[in-house]
Amino acid sequence: MIKISLKLEPLTSQAFEPFGDVIETDNVKHFSINAGTIERYHDLAKVDVGTDSGGRAIISMACSNELTELPAQVPVVERHPLGSQAFIPMSDSPLFLVVAEPSETVDAKKFHAFVSNGRQGINYRPGVWHMPLIALKTGLKFLVIDRAGPGDNCDEHYFDDVEITMHR
Amino acid sequence: MIKISLKLEPLTSQAFEPFGDVIETDNVKHFSINAGTIERYHDLAKVDVGTDSGGRAIISMACSNELTELPAQVPVVERHPLGSQAFIPMSDSPLFLVVAEPSETVDAKKFHAFVSNGRQGINYRPGVWHMPLIALKTGLKFLVIDRAGPGDNCDEHYFDDVEITMHR
Repeated sequence: MIKISLKLEPLTSQAFEPFGDVIETDNVKHFSINAGTIERYHDLAKVDVGTDSGGRAIISMACSNELTELPAQVPVVERHPLGSQAFIPMSDSPLFLVVAEPSETVDAKKFHAFVSNGRQGINYRPGVWHMPLIALKTGLKFLVIDRAGPGDNCDEHYFDDVEITMHR
Repeated sequence: MIKISLKLEPLTSQAFEPFGDVIETDNVKHFSINAGTIERYHDLAKVDVGTDSGGRAIISMACSNELTELPAQVPVVERHPLGSQAFIPMSDSPLFLVVAEPSETVDAKKFHAFVSNGRQGINYRPGVWHMPLIALKTGLKFLVIDRAGPGDNCDEHYFDDVEITMHR
């Protein structure tokens, strides 16, 4: 059994760039709309739902039933080859992310771990390997923007001979 | 000057159906994902960004600079003929909505006013006439999912001889 221990790094748009977008308003350019009453932080994430494959963007919500404690094991990762997937927390709560760039076969040594500042959302590029959504509290809500449409859009990979753990 | 006074009605998915979707988890069907740790409230809003017209869905944020007090006048309404537009409050804060079904010319008598329960988001169908986003507090954040792409996707209508007011 190979053991890999991933330290959670602070989430920044620069560090996360190979995996997708960080959705945040801190230090982001913005402009006024509605006669100056509203600031718009425009086009923060590249929603890619594969319209060539008949995909369409959908808005869903996810709510946490069960908490995870840190350090936590990562027994499975998944990818959505046909579309991007965004998660935005609806309350101030950190996102825990274990990700690797798109690849045909999973290489456990290529994963990175990030923790958000609580206000950040993220958008995975199509095909990015990632740990399924977890939460450290129950009842947390996340807005989800991803793809619906024909085709198989979820591959899972279970780690057999590798134990990946993420920790603070 | 014709005066129209609109009482803010409670927002429900049934009442709002001609204008779009209500994005909420209360009394909505859901199913478990991620080995039962997460409940998913699936496909709550029809994102329609006119892929025929070269549109793509984008995720943005809006933040309120200025507050509005009730009763409030509605001097202008707008529509986005090429795409839907969703607003989801990032904190518990009501949305104030003045809407009319798609039509070539604006008829001030056809407008309805709604107020959300604070946890609800909404998604306007393409072409629905609506009051621009307002807020009763400054610093409120809203997630926006709408269309980017070629074409003119914002028509405004200013009321000259009609005074529309919304009130509780």
